[in-house]
Amino acid sequence: MDDDAATEILAATHRALCDRGYADVTLADIAAEADRSKGLIHYYYDDKETLFAAFLDYLYDRYTERIESVAGETPRDRLVGLFETVLADRKGSAGEQLRTAMLAVNAQAPCDDAIRARLERFDEYLLDRVAAIVADGVATGEFADDVDPTVAAEFLVTAVAGAHARRAAVDRSPDRIVETMTRYAERHLVADGPAEVSG
Amino acid sequence: MDDDAATEILAATHRALCDRGYADVTLADIAAEADRSKGLIHYYYDDKETLFAAFLDYLYDRYTERIESVAGETPRDRLVGLFETVLADRKGSAGEQLRTAMLAVNAQAPCDDAIRARLERFDEYLLDRVAAIVADGVATGEFADDVDPTVAAEFLVTAVAGAHARRAAVDRSPDRIVETMTRYAERHLVADGPAEVSG
Repeated sequence: MDDDAATEILAATHRALCDRGYADVTLADIAAEADRSKGLIHYYYDDKETLFAAFLDYLYDRYTERIESVAGETPRDRLVGLFETVLADRKGSAGEQLRTAMLAVNAQAPCDDAIRARLERFDEYLLDRVAAIVADGVATGEFADDVDPTVAAEFLVTAVAGAHARRAAVDRSPDRIVETMTRYAERHLVADGPAEVSG
Repeated sequence: MDDDAATEILAATHRALCDRGYADVTLADIAAEADRSKGLIHYYYDDKETLFAAFLDYLYDRYTERIESVAGETPRDRLVGLFETVLADRKGSAGEQLRTAMLAVNAQAPCDDAIRARLERFDEYLLDRVAAIVADGVATGEFADDVDPTVAAEFLVTAVAGAHARRAAVDRSPDRIVETMTRYAERHLVADGPAEVSG
């Protein structure tokens, strides 16, 4: 299969997931959506689980590329840029596709080791990335030297996951949370920030 | 239907959801699980959606009762107690049942107004509750007077949602997040807290 066909099938997987949800979607639906024969898809993917795992791998590559491209002069700028990137709502972004996929698969994840392992990769990647930026900020003195990068990353990644979950389940806009997380970073992490002034 | 039978059917709904997920579960499965006739269940609930909405209402009552029972001498104690309660993992608690139900239904929620409206009630309840505790703390001077209760509540409720989502999807323990949220409350909200000392 050439790369275009593979990408097309994965894009069709995304559309079929949005329409039907993971539990109901079939390889035949995906073939129809991609305008390919069911035989072609079966040739490459044994079953829905295998195709979905490939879909998550494809999203992982796009997701990490996007996060790695976040620029910023200082760790604080990079941290805010990262929040904006992972919480941005751009249609068709890897982040948006990932959220749909996660929603579609969440109910199945606890029972499927291959899927759980893939979801853990996203989580670990984001934890590592945030911890590295925070550690940079502590090293350069931009963040307070008693900030533990691992603990801060755990909290921030949890807030990101919560922003996604709340948007999906109850339609809360993430705009406010980007602002609040930025404020958190400024008050809680930044050395000599407003925390001392305001208590 | 007497209260015992209703409670039994709702408990059976929970078990059937855990076993099969929302997409696959049928009223017949729930009847079998409750050891009742399918006719009895159909008499009270037209379809799975109606039964699931009743199940969410039943969880809402248990959930709010539990949160309202959180005691504590000061707003800070009550806030930490609330985190522990909503993030506690006790088997069979309303919180645990709610999480399972949310997982089972998340993929469907965006398409189902009745379910979405019910999930929003949980979210709004928790937001109001946290904002009220934070406002109390600001009023008594325990929390800094520049803390905006609504903004703090939005951030904290988002972190709670994220802790639930990450536990479900990637099996992260919430113990650390309870600790980190407590630390957040102490450094970020509390007036004259360690924030000044450590910067």
